[in-house]
Amino acid sequence: MTDTATLETIRWDKGDLIIIDQTLLPNEFKEITLATSERVWEAIKALRVRGAPAIGVCAAFGVLVGTREKKPQGLEETLSAVDATAEYLATSRPTAVNLFWALDRMKRVAHEAANGGTAESLVARLEVEALEILREDTELCRAIGRHGAPIIGDGQGVLTHCNAGGLATASYGTALAVMYTAHENGTNFEVFADETRPLLQGARLTAWELARAGIDCTLICDNTAAQVMREGRINVVVVGADRIAANGDAANKIGTYNVALIAKAHNIPFYVAAPLSTFDLAVLSGEDIPIEQRDPKEVTHGFGVQTAPEGVSVYSPAFDVTPNELIAGLVTEVGILRPPFTENIAATFASRTA
Amino acid sequence: MTDTATLETIRWDKGDLIIIDQTLLPNEFKEITLATSERVWEAIKALRVRGAPAIGVCAAFGVLVGTREKKPQGLEETLSAVDATAEYLATSRPTAVNLFWALDRMKRVAHEAANGGTAESLVARLEVEALEILREDTELCRAIGRHGAPIIGDGQGVLTHCNAGGLATASYGTALAVMYTAHENGTNFEVFADETRPLLQGARLTAWELARAGIDCTLICDNTAAQVMREGRINVVVVGADRIAANGDAANKIGTYNVALIAKAHNIPFYVAAPLSTFDLAVLSGEDIPIEQRDPKEVTHGFGVQTAPEGVSVYSPAFDVTPNELIAGLVTEVGILRPPFTENIAATFASRTA
Repeated sequence: MTDTATLETIRWDKGDLIIIDQTLLPNEFKEITLATSERVWEAIKALRVRGAPAIGVCAAFGVLVGTREKKPQGLEETLSAVDATAEYLATSRPTAVNLFWALDRMKRVAHEAANGGTAESLVARLEVEALEILREDTELCRAIGRHGAPIIGDGQGVLTHCNAGGLATASYGTALAVMYTAHENGTNFEVFADETRPLLQGARLTAWELARAGIDCTLICDNTAAQVMREGRINVVVVGADRIAANGDAANKIGTYNVALIAKAHNIPFYVAAPLSTFDLAVLSGEDIPIEQRDPKEVTHGFGVQTAPEGVSVYSPAFDVTPNELIAGLVTEVGILRPPFTENIAATFASRTA
Repeated sequence: MTDTATLETIRWDKGDLIIIDQTLLPNEFKEITLATSERVWEAIKALRVRGAPAIGVCAAFGVLVGTREKKPQGLEETLSAVDATAEYLATSRPTAVNLFWALDRMKRVAHEAANGGTAESLVARLEVEALEILREDTELCRAIGRHGAPIIGDGQGVLTHCNAGGLATASYGTALAVMYTAHENGTNFEVFADETRPLLQGARLTAWELARAGIDCTLICDNTAAQVMREGRINVVVVGADRIAANGDAANKIGTYNVALIAKAHNIPFYVAAPLSTFDLAVLSGEDIPIEQRDPKEVTHGFGVQTAPEGVSVYSPAFDVTPNELIAGLVTEVGILRPPFTENIAATFASRTA
């Protein structure tokens, strides 16, 4: 068991929603309490909490925080407070489908609990559900790790982009879960972490997490990945996802598509690790996934230092979409889904609802 | 004529070697005088002056500065001072072949001038030669611009990486010369500039130069290039080079190989613009080009801010090599060389020495 098992990105402490403020890592490890729905919204927007699964978990507790905050009187007002909070939190970030998935789940539970219940029992039910989402998330990550670990062979090199680690989930991670489990199984391997501009989640978070877990990690600039592959030092790529379409196209941090293309050019298998809650079957292909644009200042004034001329135009999408033909497999909590993705994804979901 | 024509990256002012300190751009435009060979060495090493052609020009004057500084007595001592200075400056950076080309040219001229000359006439001859290298550089860049301009069509999008602009040469540039000339010819186009981690020459220098010249420029993170290509916004890629092997393999700023691969995946032609002084026929393929490793702190503590955990391993090669099969053409002062490169490069050099 690694230290990573003890990394609690999001926790619920006697009614307080507490997160690690990831904007301060790796220089400062600080937990903050999100006492209002505005604080929850801002924490998601400003990437204090980020990563599709973690956003979902945080938003679930955010519904509870926002509902309590409005001090509703009676069942009707409580239910309205739930719906209003969920609607508000849904505006924080557009791409990670886990956000909408978690908000919908909390709303559904609230409406079920309202049937014959009281305001108090409804709020209690919301707390149970958010805690269940948190617990499930950790379990799903463990299962992703178990299914994915065999893709890393002994003595191999693994490339990852951004942070799909314990910090991107309640704990343990998705892409990094694969590495944590392989490490726990005694596999020796080296990870190359793309620093991931503009916000450097690879440098700040992935390198920090892997060092904490005792996994050999080398930091590279995003533009160095092709060279490292050419040198024969990468055997497999594993990344996370923010939303996966019905055909397997995967939206993830900007630059992931770039990595998938260069991996293909070097015949290196490219895997996406994500729970089934990251799949959005209502979206048929990646072209229909909305892509958030980030503030140009994140590129021109990164970490408080101006490094580009005043007034320069900037194009800074937060995500890109990797088309399914570049993906060797989707590592989920129920196993690795392989091509043809449309059929295999549909079959997986059909068997779960059957 | 654009403003860029007036950008003097390196100038010789009544015996003083003056350069723009590029580490301060775009926030500060400051010229510094390099009064000793140590200052010249440090300016090249620290990238105050960078870009293969500019390094060559600066080193040529550096030989003069270093020779004078040693206050040699008589012809023999003067010749020794020339050789010693050239040997010392050759240790500043390993990849840009223009450095060695310029130093060899200055040494050869010195030895020729020593034959029947005096110490004074030798130093005078060195000054004439350095000024000639400076003048030639600007002319070569203009010729590269003329030959390359037609590769940019009206209404097109152009991607470039790092800075192969006026700041990378005495003035006008190589890859950017193509854009400056197209702009002067009235072609309308948009440039996407990779910011180019870790030292952000694209953000700090290319965006600054293009804005100065009135050319439409959008800054992107290196990892965003594939997405912009996928959106159909790039029609052609033009970059510079630090050394080109006899077979056309081209060493250039780290990330160039990455760009070449993703351009290929999107069927976008990829051009390398460089003067013939950047070709090293003694090197048969890119595998034999030495690649400089940079200080890890440039990645972990960029621009004075720590953004990675203390002690993390970093792999930071300054350059990579783009194999010739990814290159559509080499834009030189004598025209665009096309595949098969080995034959066409050999023929070009043979016709020049004939």
